[in-house]
Amino acid sequence: MRYFEDFQVGQVHELGTYEVTREELLAFARQYDPQPFHLDEEAGRRSIYGSIIASGWQTAAICHRLLVRAVLEDSASMGSPGLDELRWLRPVRPGDTLSARIEVLEVTPSRSKPDRGVLRFRVEVDNQDGELAMSMVGASFIGCRPAS
Amino acid sequence: MRYFEDFQVGQVHELGTYEVTREELLAFARQYDPQPFHLDEEAGRRSIYGSIIASGWQTAAICHRLLVRAVLEDSASMGSPGLDELRWLRPVRPGDTLSARIEVLEVTPSRSKPDRGVLRFRVEVDNQDGELAMSMVGASFIGCRPAS
Repeated sequence: MRYFEDFQVGQVHELGTYEVTREELLAFARQYDPQPFHLDEEAGRRSIYGSIIASGWQTAAICHRLLVRAVLEDSASMGSPGLDELRWLRPVRPGDTLSARIEVLEVTPSRSKPDRGVLRFRVEVDNQDGELAMSMVGASFIGCRPAS
Repeated sequence: MRYFEDFQVGQVHELGTYEVTREELLAFARQYDPQPFHLDEEAGRRSIYGSIIASGWQTAAICHRLLVRAVLEDSASMGSPGLDELRWLRPVRPGDTLSARIEVLEVTPSRSKPDRGVLRFRVEVDNQDGELAMSMVGASFIGCRPAS
């Protein structure tokens, strides 16, 4: 189990990879982002993207899943206050394989709650060609190591 | 159909409401945010939130669905460059009904692509008690009205 004290500025965590199947792309778009260039092949072809593409919110959610599996589920994670500077830099297409990493930017003990701190980290998501598809600055509340 | 020219700074669009069912909350968490306080009733009760809560990414995705239905699907939407200052301010619990609105902050013609502009807008998501659950500054590429 990792606690707040175990995170240090400059640490890099590789988060692994995730294949974005056409089926999952369409299911997410139907539910949360029903725009034609996410759902309809012909509309995708005629769009500025040249094919259907994943909702940017799905790319972000997939990245979060990778973060949970690689880091948060083995940490004293207590949720998140939010994020900054999310950028969707390249389209994600059906069949793309995403890989993600974080670099720890700041570790700040909470002023009001001594049992936790805030971790801020840069997130990068690449496609299978090593091109940056998404970046952001994320944050997590992480519990401090209990006194023993 | 709304084009870039139809958006003006200060416009407010009410986006409607969305009930977050327990079933949908759990389905999203299983797929994209499998942390115990999103999935397990007992872990939720023991967490700082006092119950299971929705993934913040699901709150954002629901807000985006409301934006698509109320504004983007009747506009010349061409995707989004990203967003800033997303804040998860209050937990969203099973059965909560969210409502959302946007206020247009900036309308900026693209310098490099004369066929579109960038809309920037503040987004607010309230729960059924009128408490602010999430806010952010979003952006969309919107196509210009075709010359006739």
